[in-house]
Amino acid sequence: MFGDNHPLRMTEKTQMLADGILKRDRRSLSRAITLVESHKKEHSKQAELLIDYVLSRRRGQAMRKKDQDLLSTFRLGIAGPPGAGKSTFIEALGLMLIERGHRVAVVAVDPSSKRTGGSILGDKTRMTYLSRTLDAFVRPSPSSGILGGLAEHTNDVILLCESAGFDIVLIETVGLGQSEVAVDDAADMCLLLLPPAGGDDLQGVKKGIMEIADLVVINKADGELKTAAQHATASVRHALQLIRPRSLNWTPKVMRCSSLFNSGIDKVWDKVDEYRRTMLESGELGNKRKEQNHSWMLRQFHEQIMREARRHPSLQKTMTQIDSALVGGYVTPRRAAGELLKQFLEDKE
Amino acid sequence: MFGDNHPLRMTEKTQMLADGILKRDRRSLSRAITLVESHKKEHSKQAELLIDYVLSRRRGQAMRKKDQDLLSTFRLGIAGPPGAGKSTFIEALGLMLIERGHRVAVVAVDPSSKRTGGSILGDKTRMTYLSRTLDAFVRPSPSSGILGGLAEHTNDVILLCESAGFDIVLIETVGLGQSEVAVDDAADMCLLLLPPAGGDDLQGVKKGIMEIADLVVINKADGELKTAAQHATASVRHALQLIRPRSLNWTPKVMRCSSLFNSGIDKVWDKVDEYRRTMLESGELGNKRKEQNHSWMLRQFHEQIMREARRHPSLQKTMTQIDSALVGGYVTPRRAAGELLKQFLEDKE
Repeated sequence: MFGDNHPLRMTEKTQMLADGILKRDRRSLSRAITLVESHKKEHSKQAELLIDYVLSRRRGQAMRKKDQDLLSTFRLGIAGPPGAGKSTFIEALGLMLIERGHRVAVVAVDPSSKRTGGSILGDKTRMTYLSRTLDAFVRPSPSSGILGGLAEHTNDVILLCESAGFDIVLIETVGLGQSEVAVDDAADMCLLLLPPAGGDDLQGVKKGIMEIADLVVINKADGELKTAAQHATASVRHALQLIRPRSLNWTPKVMRCSSLFNSGIDKVWDKVDEYRRTMLESGELGNKRKEQNHSWMLRQFHEQIMREARRHPSLQKTMTQIDSALVGGYVTPRRAAGELLKQFLEDKE
Repeated sequence: MFGDNHPLRMTEKTQMLADGILKRDRRSLSRAITLVESHKKEHSKQAELLIDYVLSRRRGQAMRKKDQDLLSTFRLGIAGPPGAGKSTFIEALGLMLIERGHRVAVVAVDPSSKRTGGSILGDKTRMTYLSRTLDAFVRPSPSSGILGGLAEHTNDVILLCESAGFDIVLIETVGLGQSEVAVDDAADMCLLLLPPAGGDDLQGVKKGIMEIADLVVINKADGELKTAAQHATASVRHALQLIRPRSLNWTPKVMRCSSLFNSGIDKVWDKVDEYRRTMLESGELGNKRKEQNHSWMLRQFHEQIMREARRHPSLQKTMTQIDSALVGGYVTPRRAAGELLKQFLEDKE
């Protein structure tokens, strides 16, 4: 069913990127991600071939090692409101993991501003120390595209990072809202980072986000904020009790840490590792990835079908005609869409 | 092109709803909206016929009156973080407008929680006084579905409210994030309501939201918060200066009001009306609705095509086969989606 209908082959350049990734070259990885995020048809095709190639090589290696390759990596999602100190936390955690012999990649799911296409983070240099470490890869947050576009590629970007030998991928989300849901679709575990704020300030953290948290960490539990952090812990614990846990094998926990003073980060990781082992042994982690793959496939299907429609010349022509009918109020957008769909399915290029 | 290929007619029940709407019956309106929001195929078809019918009747009336019917209504989007006092503001504004002879509908774009399908607002009774007024229609926030589902119907719901004689539609958005963008796609003007908080607290209000605001109103400018409200005004004014206005004819303004003490609400409406007249005369309002219709059409197209795919039996079968290939890691979700698309376009029912 797959693999025998390629009209195109990898170009020499793509082959070089693929080889570079398998040799753990960070620059090749970075350029491959740019290729994956491109909307040009030829780039998109090359990206697909590249991912297929590196995955098949990884599979070959895994089979030789009799290894459960796909579950030998861990994907930790890190969500939280602005001001929770996500960058500092990720830097502290990342550096600790590297000291312990891991290779760590950081990618961001960042709902960019719709109008300017600019990233909210802007060009702010993120995680200075971590970015300079050879065993880390920090992908700058994307500079264009809306949420849908970014979410579309998160899965491919993670696969590429893992193929380049990064065994731990930290998926950071910026802002509140839909991006948390995107993280849940990509990560093995969701860590929610909160500032040491009281009940009222936690109102902004919506129920939907609490529901997907496997571990809540109150950051900045240091100095003057120590007491506030203790109060926050209590109120989050209370809030969590009202939510039905989504796993039979894991109950969400609350912890405190100080990224600035590097205290408690090791305990947080111990808890993450406890989750990983529990979920792996119970088979839940495997099932979660299975469901995620299915949902990524549906998302890709939808992106691809919309792209197909945009490239359909006679459909574009009808759309222009319909636009005038819409202006006159002679037809509703819903009815117009139905007409377009009929044409798209009947009259293909 | 349209209207001559209906396999179905309005049922007697649908006809009664349509007549009820044109007679300004609030109960018929409420039941018609439920029909529009339904995902059943026969409901969806009836909803389409109903909207077509009431729109054609409205057009007939407008032509007799030589009226620019479609621009005789106004759609005000009201966004803001939790705690800004949106419900109290909408109640105060709505009651004032009704006193001035308007008929006011309130609809909500509410990103419901993904997991439970429950609304964030829950069953909290909203806008007690306004709900009881005969010249107002307050649509309770939807109790199921994710953002996409809600956004899908906002346009139809607005058309129905207008057809039932509500000349002002207030579109409330709950929470921060994608829902503001949905409001911008549906409203003639976006009012951003903020609590009287300082610069730090405004960090949670993302740039994307400031960018779509045509008017920022600092609420709760009363009692102890009066000074804080003045500071907030200054810092928002500063923030707005950094954003390029999106209209040639309108520069976003900042104002203060107290919904609780009903002070400043009339001034806010004067400003809204100034915007309406400016945008109407310059032709920008007409253009905005044109663009919105186009974008609603595309959204509907995408929803309908995905529904079509879900109903496609042999596609569902292939999907099950692909799921096993995905688990084994033999194929990426991206490639699997391409395969599905090929089948969907080649092998139609």
